[in-house]
Amino acid sequence: MTLDGKIDTFARKGSAISSPRDKARVNQLRAEADAVMVGGRTLLDEDPKLTVKSEALRAERIARGLPANPLKVGVVSEANVESHAEFLHAGGSRVVLFTTSRTAKDQLDLLRSQGADVFVHAGERVDLPQAMNTLAELGVKRLMVEGGAIINFELLRLGLVDEVHAFVAPMIFGGQSAPTLASGAGLERSADAISLNLLNTETWEDGGVLLTYSVKQQRG
Amino acid sequence: MTLDGKIDTFARKGSAISSPRDKARVNQLRAEADAVMVGGRTLLDEDPKLTVKSEALRAERIARGLPANPLKVGVVSEANVESHAEFLHAGGSRVVLFTTSRTAKDQLDLLRSQGADVFVHAGERVDLPQAMNTLAELGVKRLMVEGGAIINFELLRLGLVDEVHAFVAPMIFGGQSAPTLASGAGLERSADAISLNLLNTETWEDGGVLLTYSVKQQRG
Repeated sequence: MTLDGKIDTFARKGSAISSPRDKARVNQLRAEADAVMVGGRTLLDEDPKLTVKSEALRAERIARGLPANPLKVGVVSEANVESHAEFLHAGGSRVVLFTTSRTAKDQLDLLRSQGADVFVHAGERVDLPQAMNTLAELGVKRLMVEGGAIINFELLRLGLVDEVHAFVAPMIFGGQSAPTLASGAGLERSADAISLNLLNTETWEDGGVLLTYSVKQQRG
Repeated sequence: MTLDGKIDTFARKGSAISSPRDKARVNQLRAEADAVMVGGRTLLDEDPKLTVKSEALRAERIARGLPANPLKVGVVSEANVESHAEFLHAGGSRVVLFTTSRTAKDQLDLLRSQGADVFVHAGERVDLPQAMNTLAELGVKRLMVEGGAIINFELLRLGLVDEVHAFVAPMIFGGQSAPTLASGAGLERSADAISLNLLNTETWEDGGVLLTYSVKQQRG
């Protein structure tokens, strides 16, 4: 994110924020994850590949008896993914999609014909705790969530996050409507804030700062 | 700010984010400043005192031949301040207000009757470079801006900021409409981002991180 907490400009075209070193860090995290998840707007707007870019890291995974790339997970209330999407095909990863009955039957057929495992939840939005249980049943122990802002907030709000890794780039975008690390409805009172434990701070020569936190046990 | 860049929750009631140590830091910065500035929404919604809380720091200022508290500066397109406002009276500071012809004559009379120096600009919004020139003429060399989100962004966009000091509290508020370190219209392309130089990182035992940057020379 930028220093002002933005993960994109208001134009939402997938702005460059990461430095080369930060991209390497993200790659390393992906390589260590069983699955990588994105929310609906990121999936539909950016069609991310979510693959491990480094051949050496892919080879390490294979040596550990894992697929070259982690499982990809999409969470999208109303799916509208194209058959040739990078999300579905890049890296030959297994793909799991959680959606709702708002998604058209043709789309469900298309996703399944492209090899995705599709789970359709009954409500208006995907039931995230249920999705987590399903992923656990599929053998996912370490899940990396790469945004966007809404799914980040919902997972935090529901107490489903263990750690937050935030790279702060030395830049400012501004913009009231630009997406931030966590958006969604938000919490009304600071007493309700999601409380974090600072685990580590790294200061990089490229001007970036990497902040790592664990999430404190939720009240109630 | 919170880790997700928020300076308040969406309810905008002046949420507690600072730790005791951070409050002491803000006090120290105020004591070192010739003037402390806030934007219109902060002024009208929160009516901040903007005084140096520590008696020792006030005594130091007096020993240096300065007033106990720095000059207060308000920037508000359409002023509507009450005669007993803390902003006007707390600490006995000199008060300067920049506004526009959108402010009613009665309000201008009231502000002046309460001892404020009022500068009325012709446009829809205060001309910030002109306001900076006026402050310089009044002897202000070191100006501390305490927000909110819109004036922070506008001053950065106009290249009027030398340094950014950001305290990152170990908490998350979320909220698409919650104010961030810099909001306003925002920049459209990441290539246009306001570029910063990281000067210092401090990690505090209370879980806070203090990031200090200088602002790089604007292009053009």
